[in-house]
Amino acid sequence: MARRIAIIGLGLIGGSMGLALKHAGREGVELVGYSRRPQTAQRARHLGAIDRAETSLAAAVDQSEVVILAAPIMAIKEILSQIAPHLAAGSVVTDVASTKLQVMHWAEEAIPSGTSFVGGHPMAGKELSGIEVAEASLFRGCTYCIVPGRGASDAATEKIVDLARLVGARPLFLTAGEHDYFAAGTSHLPLVLASALVMATARNPRWPKMADLAATGYSSTTRLASQHPRLNRDICLTNGDNIVAWIDDFTRELRRFRDLIAEGDLNLEQAFERARQARNAWAEEHGKTG
Amino acid sequence: MARRIAIIGLGLIGGSMGLALKHAGREGVELVGYSRRPQTAQRARHLGAIDRAETSLAAAVDQSEVVILAAPIMAIKEILSQIAPHLAAGSVVTDVASTKLQVMHWAEEAIPSGTSFVGGHPMAGKELSGIEVAEASLFRGCTYCIVPGRGASDAATEKIVDLARLVGARPLFLTAGEHDYFAAGTSHLPLVLASALVMATARNPRWPKMADLAATGYSSTTRLASQHPRLNRDICLTNGDNIVAWIDDFTRELRRFRDLIAEGDLNLEQAFERARQARNAWAEEHGKTG
Repeated sequence: MARRIAIIGLGLIGGSMGLALKHAGREGVELVGYSRRPQTAQRARHLGAIDRAETSLAAAVDQSEVVILAAPIMAIKEILSQIAPHLAAGSVVTDVASTKLQVMHWAEEAIPSGTSFVGGHPMAGKELSGIEVAEASLFRGCTYCIVPGRGASDAATEKIVDLARLVGARPLFLTAGEHDYFAAGTSHLPLVLASALVMATARNPRWPKMADLAATGYSSTTRLASQHPRLNRDICLTNGDNIVAWIDDFTRELRRFRDLIAEGDLNLEQAFERARQARNAWAEEHGKTG
Repeated sequence: MARRIAIIGLGLIGGSMGLALKHAGREGVELVGYSRRPQTAQRARHLGAIDRAETSLAAAVDQSEVVILAAPIMAIKEILSQIAPHLAAGSVVTDVASTKLQVMHWAEEAIPSGTSFVGGHPMAGKELSGIEVAEASLFRGCTYCIVPGRGASDAATEKIVDLARLVGARPLFLTAGEHDYFAAGTSHLPLVLASALVMATARNPRWPKMADLAATGYSSTTRLASQHPRLNRDICLTNGDNIVAWIDDFTRELRRFRDLIAEGDLNLEQAFERARQARNAWAEEHGKTG
């Protein structure tokens, strides 16, 4: 592993990366952290997520062999252009953004020759955000998507694979296009559905009384709606075409259920049975419960 | 509380009612259980959910002051007609079904004078079913909807209120119409969305690879799809109009998000922010986390 790693952005994901790397306990690795808000970086240092807080991007990436961008997606382009002149020769830049195609484009434009960009996306998170909810075990057992940039060296890619394993995740190689299409269906579509469900119910004039009936089912199905709105916006701005395509697929499936329900069709049981089987097969294969 | 309580149907809810009542530890209350499958009733007795297993409905309700119907919704009509001649004078029949209007109609037709029907619905559950997953704490802190039948005596209603409190729940009075409309929005719509989401994703030809990216967000949003298909069908068959109306409300909200996403509209952040605020306000008021 590298001797110096910089983490740019110290929210839930950046902070958890720091904590997980510290927890892995590799000797002689220094973690340098940067946050737009200096007090966040101090807090991250206090919590043990980084060894040293820097107040400039240039100082943070200076002599770092690995740079992890954990800032909001729409901030990454600007950060790339600011760090580019200061990257050490042979260093590798990675990210943890929820969408990849746009980030890869920005990176391939900005990253100087002699350095590499390897996109990353750990499939872990919470509906909460910020350094205070960061935890060392966040990535344990999760899939860690890896998308090597055009021209990334094998050594650079290997470093990010190591990083993923070090935080307890399972590296999975795929293209940026695959990633964005798959993540749109499994992660971004659920987020939009959760948000639309909250709006459909909470906007109802009878919601104040009705809210008393909302229980664990409502809670799980809407959980993603509590995710950070700026993150959600950035996801939609950088993966809109895929998300819209998935919304349309979903709407067709919903229409099928609607028609069966409207007709009181006894095939409803089979339709629900198919959904249950598919969901349980996935949950069993991927060790998910609840 | 009654000296003898019969529980008809010993799945997750019936079994948990028994365990919760035993756990409440009122002296001198005998719990009699009936299941269509005798081995289930034996198992319930073994697990301590009932004191005595009966193999006929008539014997189960004989001299019971309270009869709890915890069978599948579509079985309730037939059970009511079978137990009606055997109900003790002054006894009260209640149910735990997910929909109320249809059940109340059946009950009001079947229940003889001198007995009462008080509809009930504890807003608790799991995506799993059966006596093996029953637990004494299932209803702790949950809302317990109570819908007194036409002609139910005050004493009968009071017994069901006591029952709800005894299992740790908060009684909430409402009409059958209110219940079914509210439950359709907070519980049945989420179930249909979860099932449609599973079908939209799992039917995709690329699902085998894509499934690796599905993580905790997908797991929560689809959790209800693992619920028992027959229960889901029965809910839809007895509350179809409300569910269809909610699906249409939801589809309009989803369409709003879709249009904002398709246009890359910066108002997306506000739209997500409103959903987050509404969801968090509900979660805080109702003590839900995650």
